[in-house]
Amino acid sequence: MADYRFGVMDKGPRNLITDVPGVLVGHCTLAEGDIQTGVTAVLPHGGDVYHEKCPAASHVVNGYGKSMGLVQINELGSIETPLILTNTLSAGEAFTACVRYMTARNEGIGREEGTVNPVVLECNDSFLNDIRGLHVKEEHVFRAIEAAGNEFELGAVGAGRGMTCYGLKGGIGSASRVFDVDGEVYTAGALVLTNFGHLSDLVICGDRVGERLSGEPGETKGSCIMILATDAPLSSRQLQRACRRAQSGLARTGAITGGGSGEIVVAFSTANKMRTGDHIWRPALLNDDLLYPLFRAVTETVEEAIVRSMLEAESVTGIGGNTRQSLAELI
Amino acid sequence: MADYRFGVMDKGPRNLITDVPGVLVGHCTLAEGDIQTGVTAVLPHGGDVYHEKCPAASHVVNGYGKSMGLVQINELGSIETPLILTNTLSAGEAFTACVRYMTARNEGIGREEGTVNPVVLECNDSFLNDIRGLHVKEEHVFRAIEAAGNEFELGAVGAGRGMTCYGLKGGIGSASRVFDVDGEVYTAGALVLTNFGHLSDLVICGDRVGERLSGEPGETKGSCIMILATDAPLSSRQLQRACRRAQSGLARTGAITGGGSGEIVVAFSTANKMRTGDHIWRPALLNDDLLYPLFRAVTETVEEAIVRSMLEAESVTGIGGNTRQSLAELI
Amino acid sequence: MADYRFGVMDKGPRNLITDVPGVLVGHCTLAEGDIQTGVTAVLPHGGDVYHEKCPAASHVVNGYGKSMGLVQINELGSIETPLILTNTLSAGEAFTACVRYMTARNEGIGREEGTVNPVVLECNDSFLNDIRGLHVKEEHVFRAIEAAGNEFELGAVGAGRGMTCYGLKGGIGSASRVFDVDGEVYTAGALVLTNFGHLSDLVICGDRVGERLSGEPGETKGSCIMILATDAPLSSRQLQRACRRAQSGLARTGAITGGGSGEIVVAFSTANKMRTGDHIWRPALLNDDLLYPLFRAVTETVEEAIVRSMLEAESVTGIGGNTRQSLAELI
Amino acid sequence: MADYRFGVMDKGPRNLITDVPGVLVGHCTLAEGDIQTGVTAVLPHGGDVYHEKCPAASHVVNGYGKSMGLVQINELGSIETPLILTNTLSAGEAFTACVRYMTARNEGIGREEGTVNPVVLECNDSFLNDIRGLHVKEEHVFRAIEAAGNEFELGAVGAGRGMTCYGLKGGIGSASRVFDVDGEVYTAGALVLTNFGHLSDLVICGDRVGERLSGEPGETKGSCIMILATDAPLSSRQLQRACRRAQSGLARTGAITGGGSGEIVVAFSTANKMRTGDHIWRPALLNDDLLYPLFRAVTETVEEAIVRSMLEAESVTGIGGNTRQSLAELI
Repeated sequence: MADYRFGVMDKGPRNLITDVPGVLVGHCTLAEGDIQTGVTAVLPHGGDVYHEKCPAASHVVNGYGKSMGLVQINELGSIETPLILTNTLSAGEAFTACVRYMTARNEGIGREEGTVNPVVLECNDSFLNDIRGLHVKEEHVFRAIEAAGNEFELGAVGAGRGMTCYGLKGGIGSASRVFDVDGEVYTAGALVLTNFGHLSDLVICGDRVGERLSGEPGETKGSCIMILATDAPLSSRQLQRACRRAQSGLARTGAITGGGSGEIVVAFSTANKMRTGDHIWRPALLNDDLLYPLFRAVTETVEEAIVRSMLEAESVTGIGGNTRQSLAELI
Repeated sequence: MADYRFGVMDKGPRNLITDVPGVLVGHCTLAEGDIQTGVTAVLPHGGDVYHEKCPAASHVVNGYGKSMGLVQINELGSIETPLILTNTLSAGEAFTACVRYMTARNEGIGREEGTVNPVVLECNDSFLNDIRGLHVKEEHVFRAIEAAGNEFELGAVGAGRGMTCYGLKGGIGSASRVFDVDGEVYTAGALVLTNFGHLSDLVICGDRVGERLSGEPGETKGSCIMILATDAPLSSRQLQRACRRAQSGLARTGAITGGGSGEIVVAFSTANKMRTGDHIWRPALLNDDLLYPLFRAVTETVEEAIVRSMLEAESVTGIGGNTRQSLAELI
Repeated sequence: MADYRFGVMDKGPRNLITDVPGVLVGHCTLAEGDIQTGVTAVLPHGGDVYHEKCPAASHVVNGYGKSMGLVQINELGSIETPLILTNTLSAGEAFTACVRYMTARNEGIGREEGTVNPVVLECNDSFLNDIRGLHVKEEHVFRAIEAAGNEFELGAVGAGRGMTCYGLKGGIGSASRVFDVDGEVYTAGALVLTNFGHLSDLVICGDRVGERLSGEPGETKGSCIMILATDAPLSSRQLQRACRRAQSGLARTGAITGGGSGEIVVAFSTANKMRTGDHIWRPALLNDDLLYPLFRAVTETVEEAIVRSMLEAESVTGIGGNTRQSLAELI
Repeated sequence: MADYRFGVMDKGPRNLITDVPGVLVGHCTLAEGDIQTGVTAVLPHGGDVYHEKCPAASHVVNGYGKSMGLVQINELGSIETPLILTNTLSAGEAFTACVRYMTARNEGIGREEGTVNPVVLECNDSFLNDIRGLHVKEEHVFRAIEAAGNEFELGAVGAGRGMTCYGLKGGIGSASRVFDVDGEVYTAGALVLTNFGHLSDLVICGDRVGERLSGEPGETKGSCIMILATDAPLSSRQLQRACRRAQSGLARTGAITGGGSGEIVVAFSTANKMRTGDHIWRPALLNDDLLYPLFRAVTETVEEAIVRSMLEAESVTGIGGNTRQSLAELI
C-alpha cells in the first residue's frame, strides 16, 4: 500500500482538510451492537461563523440525497454554520441540533437577524446501523462540534461509523494539497464520507484492486459526500467550479455513480470572510485563468480521501450481524 | 371585496387545491400566548405515496430558505411523502416526524427499499411566534397529516398561524382553476404560505390597495411557499415549467421578491403515478404545445391564493404583544 | 397615457439603459417591403470589452429560444463582447459578425488569447418579416455597433422592427432608475425586445387596457429579451439574483409566459471590470442585504420598458401585408 | 495497444455511436495547408427530425464554450435538428447552415410552425487551423450531413481535423455498448470531439502512458464535446442523468477539466419519438432503478471514445508549421 501515489502535487503537513488554516473537524461515534453510526462536524473556522461567513458553493453530482442547506448556499454563496454529517434519517435531528447550537450563541437569530441555515449532509448506513431507530440525538451533534480540532481520525468514525465503500468498510477520508499561485502558497483539502460502489470497480491509482478481490462486476449503490476547503481567495462562483471537479476524483477510484446515489459536494474558502455588518465586501479573488492548480488539487484530494476512508477503516460488525471488512486486511 | 376578479378562468368547486382529485390538506395550529405557529400537511393522494409516487418538480425563485427535499425531487422527478409546511427553525423536527411517519408505514424504508425523502417547506414566523422555542413537535406533524381532508381552513391556521403578508396577517391561501385541453377537463390548484411584502406594495387585481393603506414605500422582507397540484398528465420537466409561472402570480400581487426571501415552488401531478415495482412507466403526457391553460392557471391561482391568505386571516397577537391585523378589517 | 406611473422610484435623466454610465446602444433597421427586421447592439462600455470584461449573469424564464453565449456567461460570470439582438434565424450571422468584429480588434483571439464568446439574443419576427430570407447580414451588425450612443430610439427599430407585443406593435423598450445605497447613488437600466402576449392580457399600471381593446382572452405566444445594466458594484451571483426579478416586471404587464416563449435575461455591471492581465481581481461588492433597491429597480424598469416598447412603436406593415398597429393610436 | 480493455460491458458490432439503430454520422474535412478543420454531423435518425423529435438533454461540465441550442434542449427536452460539430469561430456559420437546411425541408419553419433550434457544438482548433479565417462555409455543413451513414472515420477527420488531445493528435472518437434491462437489449453509444489535456496526464485503462511519454506535469487546456445516443427508452430527465456520467469517463483518461474548457454533453434517445402533431405523448420509460447499466455504458463509451480519437488519428501539420503527432506512432 505504501507506494500508492495519488497525483503529482505536494501534500499538506497532515494530509487532512485541517491543513487549511482554521478548519476544524470533530467526531462523535456511536458504536454499540446494532447502533453503528455517528456525527462528524466540519467547522469552517474557529470563530463566529454566523457573523463571519465563508464564501461557499455546492454541486449535486447525483441527487438521491437529503442534504439540507444547499438552496441558501446557492443563493447567497456562503455558509454560516458548521457542516454536520450524519446518517440519512437523522438529518432532521442534526438540523435541530445545529439550530439549537447557533441560537444559543447568537441572540439575534429568530429575532432581528433573520434565521440560520444549517448545512446537513448524509449517507445511508442501514447495512450496519439500525438507522430506523434514529439513535443520533442533539447531544451527539454538540459533542462532535466540541471535539473539533486540527487532528481527527479517519475511517469507521463519526458519521462514517456505519458506512460501506466498494463493498468494504468505508467512512471518513481526507487529504490535502499545497500549491503556488503567482508566488502565494495555498492549501486545498477534502473530507469525504464514503458509502458507495461495488467491490469489482475499485481502482487505486490505476490498479484494478477490486477486480482481483471480487471478480464479478455488480451494481453500484450508495452515496458520497465531498467537502472541499481552501484558503485560496475564491468567489462562490469559483468555488462552484471547484465543486464540479470532485466528480473526477471520485471517478478515478472507479466510481460509476449509480442512480441511487447522493453524491453531493460543498466547497468553502476561508479567505475573504463576509462580515454581516459590512455594507461593502472587498475580496481579493484569483483570476479564473489561475485556477488550474486548485482544480487539480480537488481531483487529487478527493481521490486520495476516498481511498484513505477505506484503508484507515477497521472492520465493523453491526445490525443483524452484518459485517464490512477493512480493505487494509485484504491488500 | 366581493367583486375582485382574479383572471379569466373558471374556478373549481371549492376554489381550493383539494379540487384536484385525491389531494388532501390538514392543519395543526398552535395558538397560545407567545406560541403562534403550526403545521400544514399536503398529501398528494390518500394512498401509499411511497410506493405510488407522483411526478413532481421544484423551483427556487429566491433561495433564502431552508426547504428540504428539493435535491431529490430535482433528480428523480417525484415526491414520495406528504409535503410538510412549518416555521423555519422547526423544519428539522418536521423532517424527523415525516421520517417516523413513513417508516412506521413502510417496513422497507431503511432496509431493502432505501431511504425516504421528506419534503419540508418553511417560512420565518418570528414576528408573532417564539420561533426560538422550537415549539413544533413530532405529534403536531402527525396531527396535521391525520387532519387532512378535502375541506380545510385558510388564513391564520396551521403553518400560517404566525405569518405576515404585506405587513398584515398572512398565512395559508389556496385557489383552483379548471380547464379543458383537447376535450379533457383538468384541475390545477395552488396552496401558498405567505410571509412577505411591504404593505405599500400590495396590489389586488390591479388596485393599489397597499398605497392607500400605507402610503410610504418600504423594503420587502420574507418568504412565500407555493405548492401546485394538478391532475393534468405532466412529466417532471413540464411541472418544472409550471413552477416557474408561480412567480408571475406572486408579482401580480405587487411582490418585489426581496433578497431575504425564500420563495420556493413545488409542483406535482396526480396523473401517471410511478409505482415502485414497475420496470416500465407508461405515462400519457400532454404535448408541450398544449400547456398554455395550465400556465395561466398557475398564475391565476397563485395570485388569488396569496390574496385569500390575507382576506381569510383573522388578526393575531403573539410574542412581545406583536400584532398583525387582518386585511379584511381594513377594506 | 401621460399619467401612467410605473412604480415609485426615481428615473434616470434619459429613462434609458444608457443612463448607466458607459453603456451605449445602437440600431440598424431594415424596413422595406417584406423585410422588416434589424439589429440592436448593446455595448457594456465604450472601451475594450474583451480585455475589460464586465461581471455578468443570465437567467432563462422560459427557454424556447436560441440565445447564444449563455453557457460561458454562467461559467465565467462575465461578458466580453457587445450584446447583439436580432431575429431568430439570423442569430448565426450575428454570431459570425461579432466574431469578425472582435477578431479584427484583438489580434490574440484565436491565437494566444483563446476564443471569444459572442452573446446573441433573438426573437421571432416572422409575422411581419421574411425571416426565412435571412436578410440580416454581417454589415448590419457592424452598423448597429457603430451607431451605438447614449441616445437611441425605441419601438419599431433595430431588432425590434418586426416584433409584435400583446398583438400590437412591439419592439425595443427601455427605462432606468436611480437609487441610493448607503450614500452612494447608482443607476439601473433595462432594455427589452418585446415579442409576446395576447392583447386581452395587457395591463398597464393595473389598468386592464387589453381587455377593453380586445375582449376575448387568447393564447399568448412569443418571447421577450431583457437586458439589465447597472453601475452598482455586483458580483455575477448578485447579478443572477437581479435577473430573476425581471420576470416580476414582465408579469406586471399581464404576461403569462407561454410555452413557446424565449424569455431570457442578461445582466451586467459596469463596476469592477475584470482586466484580463490581472492575477487578482479586487472588487468592492455590495452586501446582499442591500440589494433591495436594485431588485425593485429591475422590476420597475422591465415593466416600464415593455410598455414603452409599445407606446413608442409606430404601426408597421410587412410580409403578406400583415400589419401590427401602434398602441399609441388606440389609447 | 491491442489489449486495452475499457470496462466490462459488451461492445456493439461497430463499436460506434451508429450502433444505436437509426443514428447516422458524416464528416466534411478541410485539410489544406493552414486550413485544418471541418464539420461533423450527427443525425439522431434518418427521418424528419423536426416533426419526430428525440427526447434529449444537455449538461455542462465546464462552460468555457460557445455551444448553441442548449437553452431549448433544457426547456423542451428534445432535439429537432442534426447536431453539428465544428470549430469555435465557425459555430455561427454552422447555425446558419442548419437553419438553411431545415427551412429548405420544412415549409412551416418561420411561418406557422415557429422556429427551429440548431444544435451546434465546438472546440478551438487554432493550434493547427487558421481559425480566424472562418474557412468553414455552409456547403461544408451540408456535405457533412449528406455524408452521414452508419460507417464513419475516427481521428483527424471532420470537426476533429485540427483538434489536439493530451498534446497529441485528437479529433473524433466513438464507442458503443450493448446491455440488457429486464430482458430487452439496448445500445448506448458516444461520439466525442477531443481537444483537451496535457500529455503527462494521459491514462489508458489505468496505465500512465502520459507520464512515460512526457514526464513533466503541465496545465491542461481545451475542451471536449461528448454526444451520447441510446435506444433505451428514457425521458429527458433520465437522459440528463446519463449526461452527468460522461465526466466520469473523461476522468478515467486522466482529465483534470481545466478552467478554459468547454466540456459539454448532449444526450438523446431514439425511442419514444415526439411527433409534433400528437396531443398526447405516450412513452414507455425505464424505471429509474434500472438505469445502472446505462450509466456504466456512458462511462465506458466516453472513456474508450476519447482514447480512440487519439489512437485512430494520423499526425497533422497545419498553420505555422505546427504539428500534432499521432499517439499510435508513440506506443
